[in-house]
Amino acid sequence: MAEKTPVSTGLRGQSAGSTALCTVGKSGSGLTYRGYDIHDLAEHARFEEVAYLLLKGKLPTRQELDAYVTKLKRLRWLPAPLKAVLEQIPADSHPMDVMRTGASMLGDLETEESFGQQQDRADRLLAALPSIICYWYRYSHDGVRIETDTDDESVGGHFLRLLHDAPPSELHAGVMNVSLILYAEHEFNASTFNARVCASTLSDIHSCVTGAIGTLRGPLHGGANEAAMAMIENWRTPDEAERELLGMLERKEKIMGFGHAIYRDSDPRNAIIKRWSARLAEDVGDTRLYPVSERCEAVMWREKRLFCNADFFHASAYHFMGIPTKLFTPIFVCSRVTGWCAHVFEQREGNRIIRPSADYVGPEHQAWLPIEHRQ
Amino acid sequence: MAEKTPVSTGLRGQSAGSTALCTVGKSGSGLTYRGYDIHDLAEHARFEEVAYLLLKGKLPTRQELDAYVTKLKRLRWLPAPLKAVLEQIPADSHPMDVMRTGASMLGDLETEESFGQQQDRADRLLAALPSIICYWYRYSHDGVRIETDTDDESVGGHFLRLLHDAPPSELHAGVMNVSLILYAEHEFNASTFNARVCASTLSDIHSCVTGAIGTLRGPLHGGANEAAMAMIENWRTPDEAERELLGMLERKEKIMGFGHAIYRDSDPRNAIIKRWSARLAEDVGDTRLYPVSERCEAVMWREKRLFCNADFFHASAYHFMGIPTKLFTPIFVCSRVTGWCAHVFEQREGNRIIRPSADYVGPEHQAWLPIEHRQ
Repeated sequence: MAEKTPVSTGLRGQSAGSTALCTVGKSGSGLTYRGYDIHDLAEHARFEEVAYLLLKGKLPTRQELDAYVTKLKRLRWLPAPLKAVLEQIPADSHPMDVMRTGASMLGDLETEESFGQQQDRADRLLAALPSIICYWYRYSHDGVRIETDTDDESVGGHFLRLLHDAPPSELHAGVMNVSLILYAEHEFNASTFNARVCASTLSDIHSCVTGAIGTLRGPLHGGANEAAMAMIENWRTPDEAERELLGMLERKEKIMGFGHAIYRDSDPRNAIIKRWSARLAEDVGDTRLYPVSERCEAVMWREKRLFCNADFFHASAYHFMGIPTKLFTPIFVCSRVTGWCAHVFEQREGNRIIRPSADYVGPEHQAWLPIEHRQ
Repeated sequence: MAEKTPVSTGLRGQSAGSTALCTVGKSGSGLTYRGYDIHDLAEHARFEEVAYLLLKGKLPTRQELDAYVTKLKRLRWLPAPLKAVLEQIPADSHPMDVMRTGASMLGDLETEESFGQQQDRADRLLAALPSIICYWYRYSHDGVRIETDTDDESVGGHFLRLLHDAPPSELHAGVMNVSLILYAEHEFNASTFNARVCASTLSDIHSCVTGAIGTLRGPLHGGANEAAMAMIENWRTPDEAERELLGMLERKEKIMGFGHAIYRDSDPRNAIIKRWSARLAEDVGDTRLYPVSERCEAVMWREKRLFCNADFFHASAYHFMGIPTKLFTPIFVCSRVTGWCAHVFEQREGNRIIRPSADYVGPEHQAWLPIEHRQ
């Protein structure tokens, strides 16, 4: 009996369906949402505008955007049973587990009964997820029950206000806006594909988003900016960073925040968030983390021709805004939920259940062996 | 701009990796777990033995099985914060949402910190999931806080005792045993594939199982036995069933519990559960539901050459044991969690992140349009 070791092909390069939402690396290194270039979006758009684009299919008029922002503000409150659940989750739980349980519990309370409700449920998740993570964080870490019903104009500003119990500066709100735009959508990445597999059974949207959160939690996916932060915060000078990084490369250790499964030459999101990280460094008078990050970028390119992906300068940018490292990936959720939900809507059109085949590498037919005869 | 409608290919017939766990329809209609035929397993095995086979890789010796059963019994208790969460979930919530939130919350409290814990976490989920659904059900529907720490020898017996507040008959425990064996594993079905996509990011096992529960929830996947029950319970005689069924066929309505994505001629699980449903019908003196079910089977074969899948006679079997219809799919979870976890273990060996491509069917490059100029 020749058993082989099971191996995952990762479906790399295989098409698993079609999408009208996004292109990744189509023209070398580009990224577009519904045809709009990520540079244009990051330069000109509000995140709520991008969410509208992804979820409703077009850029909103002024009137539509105002109405959408008003709707999202109205949906930031948390039901009492959800708050009670969040209060049961210990301070040392993984924040992505909190997001997963919070999104799931919201589904228990506000179930999507039919696909006609999908837009409202998606908007509710978009508005409530920042409230969920901050309510838990402030309760478990600071012992306070916060009011999540703020009047901030933006999703990013809402998050920062809940976290810091103070209105964010214009600069911080602006950086959060860009960050949320950059992370909003990325074609058939693992978490989005996970959401589509779930959607293909015609399950509800909270199941899709809950599974996607759990998938984004993996260190090969959403955890990269946290891992980058954990690495660079150890280093006091660019020279120390270079020395340590060379040692890691020599020992063939995994270095997070560099390279990408799809992009070959560069990640278009990097230059954008890097510029904002530089602005924040100047703003806080940083002379350490940003120069260390720049040196890492130079060394990785020189030694390995590896470029920074979206996650690397996000680490320093978030840090400069006083965001605890453990909340980096939950912010990713607050943004990507727009892409996930847009993909769920798309999967539901022209749906076929996603049920691939597998290559069998196990034992051939085994005769039943009574328990007395086993060894 | 020629936009096309996004279409899902469902990856039908495409290999998404390899597995040593299961063959489905390999020799026409067969089903094997690690090489053992489903007929042998349903005839001779205890479900805990099958769980051991899937999770640990071989059939246990007597000593190993005894130790495993003892371990599972020890893991039926629920932590106080998990019970508090379940008490927050309303009685009219979808029971699969309860399973999803319960599994997620268990992960908040007993996080898998490293893959070295994967066996223990899987065993814990296997032991605790029946407690989770029954604790919520009895609290929300009957207003009682049950003790989930029972001394039943089997997972199925434990479930029935919690549900009915009485030890199950030998017949009922036996049927539950067979049912759990039949549902334990089924290769790369949608929920299992969902779990593997999550696992491929190296996320934790609770994230994988939570996502799989949400995927099984879909009416194209786990909901079929509930849908079959909802249909047959309306009919008082075989003749009425035939008349109504012919009408449904004429109106091209979807009829759940028949046919299969992979099996072409028959579902090997059907004959097994059908025989047990017949035994239960005799036991309760049924003269209606079982004859109605048999007539449905005959009509669907005669008219459409469609055979009963595993779900159809499960509907009547569960009903005869006094199980509320809304708990049918949660029982599926209590069984399939073994297959899901075994697939997660397998994905983690020789892993590559599951990240397929997509065919882009959206708009070409769009120039940015300032909000004042939009319509």
